[in-house]
Amino acid sequence: MTSTIGLGLAVSTVIFALRPDATGAPSVWLPLVRRTREPFLDRWALPGGMVRVDESLEGAARRNLGETTRLEPTYLEQLYAFGDVDRSPDQRMVSIVYWALVRPDEAERVSLGENVRWFAADELPDLAFDHNLIVDYALWRLRTKMEYSRIAHAFLGPRFTLAELREVYEAVLRKPLDPANFRRQMETSGVIEPTGEVVTGGRHRPPRLYRYTGAVDLVDAGPLSRRAAGAARPDTRIPA
Amino acid sequence: MTSTIGLGLAVSTVIFALRPDATGAPSVWLPLVRRTREPFLDRWALPGGMVRVDESLEGAARRNLGETTRLEPTYLEQLYAFGDVDRSPDQRMVSIVYWALVRPDEAERVSLGENVRWFAADELPDLAFDHNLIVDYALWRLRTKMEYSRIAHAFLGPRFTLAELREVYEAVLRKPLDPANFRRQMETSGVIEPTGEVVTGGRHRPPRLYRYTGAVDLVDAGPLSRRAAGAARPDTRIPA
Repeated sequence: MTSTIGLGLAVSTVIFALRPDATGAPSVWLPLVRRTREPFLDRWALPGGMVRVDESLEGAARRNLGETTRLEPTYLEQLYAFGDVDRSPDQRMVSIVYWALVRPDEAERVSLGENVRWFAADELPDLAFDHNLIVDYALWRLRTKMEYSRIAHAFLGPRFTLAELREVYEAVLRKPLDPANFRRQMETSGVIEPTGEVVTGGRHRPPRLYRYTGAVDLVDAGPLSRRAAGAARPDTRIPA
Repeated sequence: MTSTIGLGLAVSTVIFALRPDATGAPSVWLPLVRRTREPFLDRWALPGGMVRVDESLEGAARRNLGETTRLEPTYLEQLYAFGDVDRSPDQRMVSIVYWALVRPDEAERVSLGENVRWFAADELPDLAFDHNLIVDYALWRLRTKMEYSRIAHAFLGPRFTLAELREVYEAVLRKPLDPANFRRQMETSGVIEPTGEVVTGGRHRPPRLYRYTGAVDLVDAGPLSRRAAGAARPDTRIPA
């Protein structure tokens, strides 16, 4: 009962960004990495790799992201540990999965190449390991979380129009929202407030710019983030 | 980068139940197990142990719970993976933490003894490993989750009075709630509905009994629970 099992420990990261689909409407995309070795040689997979003995789980996720995509995400959060007995053909392998929600300017910085490419989250090929299941789970969490948290913020800059915010909700929830209802709900929620600025460009009725209110952290990990603040770990919070 | 690290993989479970405090008011308690070996000999710790090579993570959590407390919880959910480099003095050790929320009748069945005892969550001694941090994190998640989900249900039977439901919220949130406001909020939320029954016992105005509405799973793990339903895993959902 007390013996240590022969086990591989990996991290993988689901990176979600909004990008235009074939019709030009924003939808959820993620970058994948083509595997260059067995198992699952040549299949697409989530960016990730093995955890080194001297690095934290989040540290391993950040290092692997940097090595494969050069991305240093602002929003990075632990999502779930996948550890089914048969998820890898070679050995027992547990993967701690993180997710990163990135703004368009961050997404632009993903280093693409023959072995790194963006895919629409709804149209994935057969991925390596159980990575299709992991993406399905991450999409479900994203849609669930949109309903009660400030998570849409992760996809936007510090200032945004109501139309831009609605586009984020529509892209994630995969359904059109009534603009007037959306405006009313957001304006009465207390979650966003007008900045007093408008979009420049000489239109007759330029759209107002909004920002999120308050100082609530976008990534609020409770006691974990409070501890991390004293531990010189990379800051995973969006500045208020 | 591809080598496997020497690593211990463990599971631990935070079991929360409501039990009376010194004043008789319900508060959050958890059972702990006294360690009978190094490291942290004689310290109290969360029930748990090593993952065997042929068992799933949740299977390992259930087996260890059975061996230490004889508990077979209805509500068992993965909470977070703790993997800091220095969390165990002997070797690199990652612990996948589950939590179980149990009803009073389940809590009664916890097998107590010299090495298993209930503790009030707010008054813990120094625990083994980083288990104080884990409990703090679980309490934070519990309090956060109460605000938007049906999680209070896990502590109650299928039928309950409004006063019993309010007691759960008060015990978890650690603050008194106004009975009239609470009644109004719950009755307009659509989350609970009267069963048509009242508490028997001959009182002049016997309290009405309520139940949760709808068929939403208490433990909704999205794509993971759908898959589990076909995989002959123990059912982790409360019957509707």
